[in-house]
Amino acid sequence: MRTLVLGGDGYLGWPTALHLAAAGHDVAVADNFVRRQYDHELGVQSLVPIEPLQVRLDVWQEVGSNPVRAYIGDLTDPEYTYEMIREFRPDAVVHFAEQRAAPYSMIDRKHAVYTQQNNVVGTLNVLYAIAEIDRDIHLVKLGTMGEYGTPNIDIEEGWIEITHKGRTDRMLYPKKPGSFYHLSKVHDSHNIEFACRIWGIRSTDLNQGVVYGQQTPQTALDDRLLTRLDYDHVFGTVLNRFVIQAVLGHPLTVYGSGGQTRGFIDIRDTAECIRLAAENPPEPGEFRVFNQMTESFSVAELAKTVADAYSKPVEIEYLENPRVEADSHYYNVVHTGLPELGLEPHLLSDTLIESMFEIVERHKDRVDLASMRPTVQWRSTSSPIRND
Amino acid sequence: MRTLVLGGDGYLGWPTALHLAAAGHDVAVADNFVRRQYDHELGVQSLVPIEPLQVRLDVWQEVGSNPVRAYIGDLTDPEYTYEMIREFRPDAVVHFAEQRAAPYSMIDRKHAVYTQQNNVVGTLNVLYAIAEIDRDIHLVKLGTMGEYGTPNIDIEEGWIEITHKGRTDRMLYPKKPGSFYHLSKVHDSHNIEFACRIWGIRSTDLNQGVVYGQQTPQTALDDRLLTRLDYDHVFGTVLNRFVIQAVLGHPLTVYGSGGQTRGFIDIRDTAECIRLAAENPPEPGEFRVFNQMTESFSVAELAKTVADAYSKPVEIEYLENPRVEADSHYYNVVHTGLPELGLEPHLLSDTLIESMFEIVERHKDRVDLASMRPTVQWRSTSSPIRND
Repeated sequence: MRTLVLGGDGYLGWPTALHLAAAGHDVAVADNFVRRQYDHELGVQSLVPIEPLQVRLDVWQEVGSNPVRAYIGDLTDPEYTYEMIREFRPDAVVHFAEQRAAPYSMIDRKHAVYTQQNNVVGTLNVLYAIAEIDRDIHLVKLGTMGEYGTPNIDIEEGWIEITHKGRTDRMLYPKKPGSFYHLSKVHDSHNIEFACRIWGIRSTDLNQGVVYGQQTPQTALDDRLLTRLDYDHVFGTVLNRFVIQAVLGHPLTVYGSGGQTRGFIDIRDTAECIRLAAENPPEPGEFRVFNQMTESFSVAELAKTVADAYSKPVEIEYLENPRVEADSHYYNVVHTGLPELGLEPHLLSDTLIESMFEIVERHKDRVDLASMRPTVQWRSTSSPIRND
Repeated sequence: MRTLVLGGDGYLGWPTALHLAAAGHDVAVADNFVRRQYDHELGVQSLVPIEPLQVRLDVWQEVGSNPVRAYIGDLTDPEYTYEMIREFRPDAVVHFAEQRAAPYSMIDRKHAVYTQQNNVVGTLNVLYAIAEIDRDIHLVKLGTMGEYGTPNIDIEEGWIEITHKGRTDRMLYPKKPGSFYHLSKVHDSHNIEFACRIWGIRSTDLNQGVVYGQQTPQTALDDRLLTRLDYDHVFGTVLNRFVIQAVLGHPLTVYGSGGQTRGFIDIRDTAECIRLAAENPPEPGEFRVFNQMTESFSVAELAKTVADAYSKPVEIEYLENPRVEADSHYYNVVHTGLPELGLEPHLLSDTLIESMFEIVERHKDRVDLASMRPTVQWRSTSSPIRND
């Protein structure tokens, strides 16, 4: 099958593209390199050095099983988007191409507006392109578990049957996201559900947990195929950051009491979920939602897991929480859809952490400590981006 | 109190501004005149001729009780928005300033993107301006009953208590809107609820029904104070259109079977609801939602009411529905919040319809028949805007 991976130069887009190519898909990636641009803006870098896209593609052509081609451009440009979809004619479009950091969207007004405009307009253009070119194309859209917030009832997969005053309906699960970024994904989901309803488009919305890990069997083939590993306070995700802190002998920094519980997923499972979703499309007109996560942990539990797994003693430090979020709450997530399609989850284990320790150990000289302390404050409307 | 009416040159913004001024508020209006621009784009006009804003303001200064001033500019321009709010320092911001026609948003990709970008970014700028300048300012935001769609359970006022698998939470009411315009309002509501939560802003979200009527006690003081009356297929609302069709001796055009049931409200009640909301602000941090409608009717019932009230025989014609919507469904709306604040609704009655017949009779030579037939098709991605 033909699969177009939007945002295919990013942390997850790149290894997913390779995973799909290795599984026999005819793959193209699309990117505008804005993710690399954010690094320059924030003055941060991936811990693991990454090659330019063209080098990655050339190396994959040598060592991989199935060449991957690239379309360079911006989804908010409709001409680019239409032309690419018209030319490549994918069976599935996998859409990672959004600004994906909550703190980035909370820096100030400009970053909030940019995030919502970029994400919502890019997705609208993709929806229109599919509606105009071929309504059979399956849109596999990356959302986030953060769209739901932390409700006091179980989190279902996108839809919920509500009985109210003796009557019943199946409705979109009510969401209460925690940043202007998370909100942009909620907006997308509403737009996509509507497009399915009026145009008969088929879509899978994947509400993904926090991803950890850095290696997949494909990126491991050659150092030049490695994907990024972010640990800065804006784009870094919590487990990656903890592993780096442990290796450096620094305390693991927990925001608030650490009672915040979230869903997590291994990077290899992300790639596999995308394959399963793409190869098993929903019916025309169906807006299908999966919760793409495998385990739940509180931040404090994560810190303890990392500390216990590391060979040397590790301290845990509690910082004031820059975000506005509950740090003691109910959290129970239904996530059976992807396992029913065949997902066999990797579970967060000492082994995994140990493999991550190794990667970090190799690159620890590159760590920029100043980039790890949070500066973006949810209650403020204008935050500095560096803490030097 | 000081009240800033965004979109104060529009169909409802203008009479609301005068109603508030007459009630003793110190009022300013803001507008960028884009509503007048849409008329030129679509080649349509208000049935009732309207004066330029400056003339309206001058006449009101002569005949009204309390002068109204104006800020001319675009809310998507943050400098304009911040400066206006900093200078006027309102107690309440009443926000009508959005592209408000579902068919306009469904013309094609460009109009869908424009609608969402304009509405969402304008509202984000207002939220940031309030958060930066004075978090006590009460944002009174116009939403629409169309955000809810037609669920099979009662429509509550913005929030719903959900019991699920033995646990309970109070959650945002799940929405299933019927156009990219309606979706933009859903996006706004989510953004505003979040701003209340993180910044302690207070907001009232008014999910308004379909408005009918054209005169208020203030606009009746002088013909140069009249507000617009739209009847074209893009900006015209259903009751206004039926009254015009009746007066012209044309059949009333019902889309589909006419079983679509909607909430309605008299233009005078709209203005009064805004006053009640503004003068009774919610607590800091509260996202309060009211369903701003007074009665529900099916489109077929409305047509029959108009036909029965008119002095001459009236035919009813059923057209294919250009929209994607259920035309036979449950519809029961809770709308007690505004009556509890003191709203005494005008009900749709023969009297009201007769007063509208009069206005239309006076201006019937201005009717452009071609502008009344629907051309915008929900299932299409590119519709013509005229039916000549």
